Amino acid sequence: MAETVNIKRLAQELNISIATVSKALNDSYEISLKTKNRVWTLAKELNYTPNPAASNLRSHKTKTVAVVIPCVANNFFSLSIKGIEEIARQYGYHVLIYQTHENIEAEVAFTNSLLSGRVDGILTSVSSSEYNSEYYTNLVKKIPLVFFDRVYENLDAVKVTTDDYEIAFEATVHLIECGCTKIAYLYGLENLPAGKARFAGYADALKAHQLEVSEQLVVKYSDDEETNLQQIKTLLQVHQPDALFSSIEEFIIPAYCACKELCLQIPSAVKILSFSNLSTAPLLNPSLTTITQPAFEIGREAAKCLFKILHNKQLDDEQNIVLKSMLIKRDSTAC
Amino acid sequence: MAETVNIKRLAQELNISIATVSKALNDSYEISLKTKNRVWTLAKELNYTPNPAASNLRSHKTKTVAVVIPCVANNFFSLSIKGIEEIARQYGYHVLIYQTHENIEAEVAFTNSLLSGRVDGILTSVSSSEYNSEYYTNLVKKIPLVFFDRVYENLDAVKVTTDDYEIAFEATVHLIECGCTKIAYLYGLENLPAGKARFAGYADALKAHQLEVSEQLVVKYSDDEETNLQQIKTLLQVHQPDALFSSIEEFIIPAYCACKELCLQIPSAVKILSFSNLSTAPLLNPSLTTITQPAFEIGREAAKCLFKILHNKQLDDEQNIVLKSMLIKRDSTAC
Repeated sequence: MAETVNIKRLAQELNISIATVSKALNDSYEISLKTKNRVWTLAKELNYTPNPAASNLRSHKTKTVAVVIPCVANNFFSLSIKGIEEIARQYGYHVLIYQTHENIEAEVAFTNSLLSGRVDGILTSVSSSEYNSEYYTNLVKKIPLVFFDRVYENLDAVKVTTDDYEIAFEATVHLIECGCTKIAYLYGLENLPAGKARFAGYADALKAHQLEVSEQLVVKYSDDEETNLQQIKTLLQVHQPDALFSSIEEFIIPAYCACKELCLQIPSAVKILSFSNLSTAPLLNPSLTTITQPAFEIGREAAKCLFKILHNKQLDDEQNIVLKSMLIKRDSTAC
Repeated sequence: MAETVNIKRLAQELNISIATVSKALNDSYEISLKTKNRVWTLAKELNYTPNPAASNLRSHKTKTVAVVIPCVANNFFSLSIKGIEEIARQYGYHVLIYQTHENIEAEVAFTNSLLSGRVDGILTSVSSSEYNSEYYTNLVKKIPLVFFDRVYENLDAVKVTTDDYEIAFEATVHLIECGCTKIAYLYGLENLPAGKARFAGYADALKAHQLEVSEQLVVKYSDDEETNLQQIKTLLQVHQPDALFSSIEEFIIPAYCACKELCLQIPSAVKILSFSNLSTAPLLNPSLTTITQPAFEIGREAAKCLFKILHNKQLDDEQNIVLKSMLIKRDSTAC
C-alpha cells in the first residue's frame, strides 16, 4: 500500500515545517513564490489531495485573471496587457482578454459572467461610451478589481493612471513654443476623467499663453472612421488651424490622411502631435511627435496591485498610482 | 400564486409549437436565430427554469468561445478577432482572447484549462515555436475547434487559411519586374505550413526567372528585436540585396530602421515589401507595399464554421477554406 500523502509527508520531503506547507497550499502571502512553487510541484507529483476544509480555502483559485479593455488594436492596450502578463506569469496565472469596443452593455454582461468563479480577479480600463460608476461601485465589493488608465474617480478601488493633465499642458506649450497660435483639439474619451484631464491641460496651456480656447477648433471622436476624416478635413479647410493636438491614437490616420488629401504639408503648414503608443510613429511621413504613456509599466503596476489584493497583502498608500508620460518630439512638430 | 412557467406556457405566449420552443431552448440548428431569440428573451422575462433533463441538455452552453492566438499586437490578429466577434455577437456569444506569445507550453496549458466546460468552442492560430500536431489531433476530438491562418495540415478539422504560396510568388515576381535580381528573404513562421508556403512561393518565383535562391540572403526571425535589426543590417552591408521580402509584419520596423541607419534609400537602393495588415502602411516613409491578408474575413469565416459545428449543422466541403490575399503596391517598391 502506498504511503498516505498528507501535509506532514510533504513537509518531510521538502524539509520545511508543516505550517509552511499548509500556508503555501493556501497561497498565503507570508510564503515566498519560490517556496509555494516547490510545495505545489511536489503536491502535484505525489497526487496530494487536500482534506475538504483545506480544499475549500483554495476552491476559488482559478489561477486566471481577466483583462477587460476597449480594444486590443490600440497599441496602448496591447502593451499594457504585455505588462500584466509579465506579472501574471510570475504567479503562474493565465490572463484572459475581453474587448468591450466601448459598449457598456457588453462590458457589464461579460464582467458579470466573471463573478461566478470564472476568474480570481479583474483588471479593467472602462468604456468611454457612458459614465457608469454605480455598476463598478457594487462590483468592487464582489471581486478583486484594479482599474488602469480609464478609471472612475470616486471609487474605493486601486487605480493606476498617468499624468494626463500635466503632459497635455506640456505638449500644448511645446506647440506654442514652435510658433503655433491656432491649435485645434481632436477630442477623445470626453466622458472619462482621462479625456477631461487631457482637454483641461490643453485649454489651460492656451489660457496661460493668452490664446483663446475655441469650440470651433474642437473635433469630437466618432466611431465611424470616415466621419473622423471628414470632420478633420472640414476643420482644416474652414478654420485653418496651424496645429492638431490629438488626444487619442485613433485620430492619427485620419489626421495624416486629411492633410495629405488637402495637400497641407506637415509640419510646415500644420503641426501634429498625438497621445499614442504607435510603434511605427518614428517611421511615419513625417515621423510623429507623441505623448507616450508608460503602457507596459501601467500594466505591470496594475497587475502587481491585483496580486497583492489576491494574496491579502497590505496596499499602503497605493490606492492611486500615477505614472508619468513622456513627450517625444519628432518631425511632425519641427519648428 | 403565479402561473407555472413551463414550455407549454412559452409556446402559448409566442404562438408557436411546444416542439419549436423545446428545440429553441436546446439551441437546435433547425430553429432560426430569430425564433431562438424570441424564445430566449421570453424565457428570461418570465424567469423560466428548465426541468433538470432539459437543463442538462444545455448545461454545456457557456455562450462563450475562446480565441487562442500568438499576439494581439499583430494587426492580422486584432483584425481577425474583430471578424470573429462580429459573428459571435450575432449568436449572442462572448469572445475570450488568450495570447500564447508563441509559447507552446502556455498554449497547451491554457487550452486544456478550457476543456472543463469553460467555453463551448475554440478558434486558434497555433504557435510557431514548435510543430505540435499530436496535441491538436487529440484536442479536436474533445471540443469544437476551428483553425485559422496558422494551422496543422494533416488534422481532421476545419481550417481557414490564405493563398500563401501564390501571393508570395506574385509578390516576388513584382520585385523582379521592378528590376530586382538579389531579393533577400526575412523568414518568419518557418516551422508552420504558412511560413513554408510563403518561402516556397518566393523560391519558386526566383527559379522561374533563373535567379538563384541563396541561403546567404535569408534572415530568420528572432524573438529579440535588437537581433532582428542587427541581422538585417549585416545582410544589407555584407550581401547588398536590392530588395527585402518580409514574410511577417514583425520585420517591418527593423527593416526600415536598418535602411535608415545605413542611409540606404527606399526604394531606390533597396525595395521592401511585407506580409502585413499594418494600418499605417500607407503613411510610412515611404509608404509600404504590402501583401494584405483578408484578416477580418478569415475571422468571420472561421467563426461561421465554429458556430455551424456548435449547432450541429453540416459543414459540406468546408474543411479547408482558402481565402485570397492581395498585393497592394506602394512607394516602397516603386520602380
